[in-house]
Amino acid sequence: MRMYDLIMKKRNGESLSREEIEYMIAEYTADIIPDYQMSAMMMAIYFRGMNAQETVALTMAMAHSGDMMDLTAIEGTKVDKHSTGGVGDKTSIALTPMVAACGVKIAKMSGRGLGHTGGTIDKLESFEGFSTRITADHFVRQVNEIGVSIMGQTADIAPADKKLYALRDVTATVDNMSLIASSIMSKKLASGADAIVLDVKTGSGAFMKQEQDSFALAKEMVTLGNMAGRKTIAIVSDMDQPLGRAVGNALEVEEAIATLRGEGPEDFTKLCMTLGSYMLVAGGAASDEEDALKKLQDVIEDGSALKKLADFVQAQGGDPKAVYDTSLLPRASVVEEVISPQGGYVSKIDCDEIGICSLLLGGGRETKESRIDLAVGLILHKKVGDQVSEGESLATIYANDQDKLKAARERFLNAYHFSDQPVKSTELIKGIVQ
Amino acid sequence: MRMYDLIMKKRNGESLSREEIEYMIAEYTADIIPDYQMSAMMMAIYFRGMNAQETVALTMAMAHSGDMMDLTAIEGTKVDKHSTGGVGDKTSIALTPMVAACGVKIAKMSGRGLGHTGGTIDKLESFEGFSTRITADHFVRQVNEIGVSIMGQTADIAPADKKLYALRDVTATVDNMSLIASSIMSKKLASGADAIVLDVKTGSGAFMKQEQDSFALAKEMVTLGNMAGRKTIAIVSDMDQPLGRAVGNALEVEEAIATLRGEGPEDFTKLCMTLGSYMLVAGGAASDEEDALKKLQDVIEDGSALKKLADFVQAQGGDPKAVYDTSLLPRASVVEEVISPQGGYVSKIDCDEIGICSLLLGGGRETKESRIDLAVGLILHKKVGDQVSEGESLATIYANDQDKLKAARERFLNAYHFSDQPVKSTELIKGIVQ
Repeated sequence: MRMYDLIMKKRNGESLSREEIEYMIAEYTADIIPDYQMSAMMMAIYFRGMNAQETVALTMAMAHSGDMMDLTAIEGTKVDKHSTGGVGDKTSIALTPMVAACGVKIAKMSGRGLGHTGGTIDKLESFEGFSTRITADHFVRQVNEIGVSIMGQTADIAPADKKLYALRDVTATVDNMSLIASSIMSKKLASGADAIVLDVKTGSGAFMKQEQDSFALAKEMVTLGNMAGRKTIAIVSDMDQPLGRAVGNALEVEEAIATLRGEGPEDFTKLCMTLGSYMLVAGGAASDEEDALKKLQDVIEDGSALKKLADFVQAQGGDPKAVYDTSLLPRASVVEEVISPQGGYVSKIDCDEIGICSLLLGGGRETKESRIDLAVGLILHKKVGDQVSEGESLATIYANDQDKLKAARERFLNAYHFSDQPVKSTELIKGIVQ
Repeated sequence: MRMYDLIMKKRNGESLSREEIEYMIAEYTADIIPDYQMSAMMMAIYFRGMNAQETVALTMAMAHSGDMMDLTAIEGTKVDKHSTGGVGDKTSIALTPMVAACGVKIAKMSGRGLGHTGGTIDKLESFEGFSTRITADHFVRQVNEIGVSIMGQTADIAPADKKLYALRDVTATVDNMSLIASSIMSKKLASGADAIVLDVKTGSGAFMKQEQDSFALAKEMVTLGNMAGRKTIAIVSDMDQPLGRAVGNALEVEEAIATLRGEGPEDFTKLCMTLGSYMLVAGGAASDEEDALKKLQDVIEDGSALKKLADFVQAQGGDPKAVYDTSLLPRASVVEEVISPQGGYVSKIDCDEIGICSLLLGGGRETKESRIDLAVGLILHKKVGDQVSEGESLATIYANDQDKLKAARERFLNAYHFSDQPVKSTELIKGIVQ
C-alpha cells in the first residue's frame, strides 16, 4: 500500500477502505508517512468528504493509535460529557458534581484550553492545590469512592489525532465535518466511557457558526459513538452570546458554585439540567428525563451536589473550603464597571469578542506556552433582550493591569449592539440529537 | 502575509494576487514555507484551479526564482522547442540541426529523462564523448559559430519549479492544467529564447491521454508564453502509438540521422517538417510555412542538415564520424525478431507498454540513480493500420540480456492488438495552437 495511491484515490472521489485508513493512520503516527502527504490527503478530504464507513474507520483508527482507557474496574455505567466549547462555558464544573450526586459515575478526561479562557482543568486550578495530574489507579479508585474524577488527558490518548489536528490547524483543513467529528470522538472513545453526552455549541461564539452545521456535526458524532457501541446523545445549544454571566476562570468557578446552590443564571442552570437529565438516563439513574430533572433538583436543594464538588476538589488535592467561601478563590486587584453609552435593548452580543476581552485581560492562552491569570474576567449584567438605561452598568471587569483593562473595555463596548425596540432573548436549547 | 491565509483563500475559491503568489514562491524556494503547507495549497489548486492572471504570476515567479539565461550575446532570434514527451520521441536530435541549417539560432536547454528511454541528453550521449556539461560562455559562442547548442539544464534554472514539481509528484497534485503549464513554461522563459515552439503530445503514450486536455494545455502554454512577451506556438501531435519506428537511445539517434538523410519514417519526418516550419517562420528565416517547408527540404537534400548535426556533435566533444557511420553508435549483443502470432491488421498499440519494453531492456531510468543502457531498444516494423501475416516480424528487439529480452518480448506481444478488417492509420498532426 502506498500513501500516494490513497491520496490519488480520495482526490478522484473514491472511498478509502478500512484497511487503507488503518494503514494511513498507523504509518502517520509512526512518522513514516510524511506531513506533506498527509496535508494533501486532508485537503482532498476537505473537498471530497468521507462517507459514514470512512469516518468510523478514521475515528476507530485514531482511537486505537494509543492507549485505550480501561474503566472496567469502575462499577456501573460510566458517562462522559463533552462540549465543543465557547465563551463562559463552565458546564463541566457544575454538571459533573450534580450528576455524580445522583449516582452516575463520571470518569472524565479533560484538556487545557487554547483560546479565550482556560479549559476545564485550568478553571479547576482556581482551587488552590487542585491537580488533574493523577495516576490511572487514583482516577479509578476516586470514581469508585466518590463517583467523580477529572483527569488530564495524557499524551497517549489518541496520539494520531493530536498529530493530525496540529497539521490540519496550519494547513486550513480543520473545517470538515467528518474530520472534526472523528477528532472529538476518537478521544472520547479512547477515554473509555460507556455513554457520551455531547454539547454542540452553535452561534457567533462557537466553532460552528451556523445552526445547520452544528446539527450536522451532532448527527455525525452521535452516529460515530453509537456505531462504536457507546450510547451517544447530543444537545445543540446556543453560543450566540456568552453562557451564563461569568467569563474568566475563577469567576466561572464561582458561577458554577452558585449554580450548585440553586442561584445560578437561568440559561446556564437550564443547560446543566438538560445535559444532566440525559446523563442520568444514560447512566441508568433515572427512568426518563422528567424523573432525572426532579432528581437533579433534589441534589441541588439538599446541598449534596455542592458537597460532591467539595469532595471532588479535596480528592484531587484542592482546598474544598473555597466551595463554601468563594472569597478564597483568586481575586483581581482592579474591579470596574462598564457603563452603557446609551439606553435601549441589547440586540446582539458579538460572542467571540467577549471571549477576546477575557483573553486581553490575561485570562486565556494565545500560545501553548502562555500563563493564564485565573483571577481576571468579566461578569455580564445585561444579555440579549435585556433593557438597559444610559449610564447603567453593562458588565463588571476584573483586571490586574490598567492597560489591559482599558483595552478590554474598549473591545467590550464594540461587541454590544442596541435597539430601540424590545428584542426577544435567544433560545438556549436548539435541539436534541440521539 | 501568512501562507495559512493563502491556503484558506484558495481553498475557499478566491483568487490569489500576484504579490501573494510571489511571496509564496519566494518563501517556499527559501525553505521558509514548509512542504506540508505547500502540498495543501497544491491540492486546493487542484480542486479550485487558477485563473489566467494567477497562472502567469506563478509562471513568472518560478521563472525568476533562479538564474534567467541572458542570450543577448547571440545575434538574431533565438528559437526554443519543447516536447511534453512520449515513446520514440527523438525529435530534437533531427529537428535542431535542420532548423539551424536554415539559419535559425537554436540555444536549447534539455533535461535527462526519467521514464521509458532517456531524455535528449542521454540519447545524444550515444555519440562517444558528447557532453552537455558546457559553460554558458561555450554555449553562447557555439550558437554564434554554428547556430546550435544543447546545454544540460542547470540547478539554477527555475529552482522553485524543481522543488515544487518534486512535491507534486509525491502528493498526487501533478494533474492540473495550470500547474503543468506553469512548470513547463517557467523553465522555458528562464532559458531565454525569443520564440518557443511546443510539441504537445496526446494519446496512450502521452502524459495527456485525451485530445481535449492536450489542446487545453497547448492553449494555456501559448497564452503564458505570449503574455511573457515570447512568440509561442504549439502543435498537438499523436502519441497513441510510438513516434517513428525506433524506441531506445542509440536506435533513436540512428533514426534521427536517417531522417536527416531523407530516409526517415513518414510520421517522424512529417512532425520534424511541421515543427521546423513554425520554427523557421518564428525565427525570421522563412516568409511562411510553405517557404519554410521548401527550405527544410533543401537542407536535407543538399546534406547541410546532416553536416550541421556532425558540427554540433563535434562542437560538444562528440565523435562526428558516427553521424556518417552509424555502426559506431552503441550496439546491442542480442538481436531478435518478434514474430506475429496471427495475421490481420494492427488495430491498436498500447503506446506506454512499448515504452515499458524499452525500460525493461535497460533503456530507461526507473529512479534518478539508474544507469541507462544506450544500445538496447526496439525497431517496430508494423504500426497501426499495417497489414501483417502470421509469422511475419512485428519488431526487432535489441538486448544485452536474455532474461530482459524475454520479459520485453512478452510485454510487447500483449501491447499489439489486431483486427480482421482494414484499420485506418492515425492522424499525426491534430492541430496547431497559436
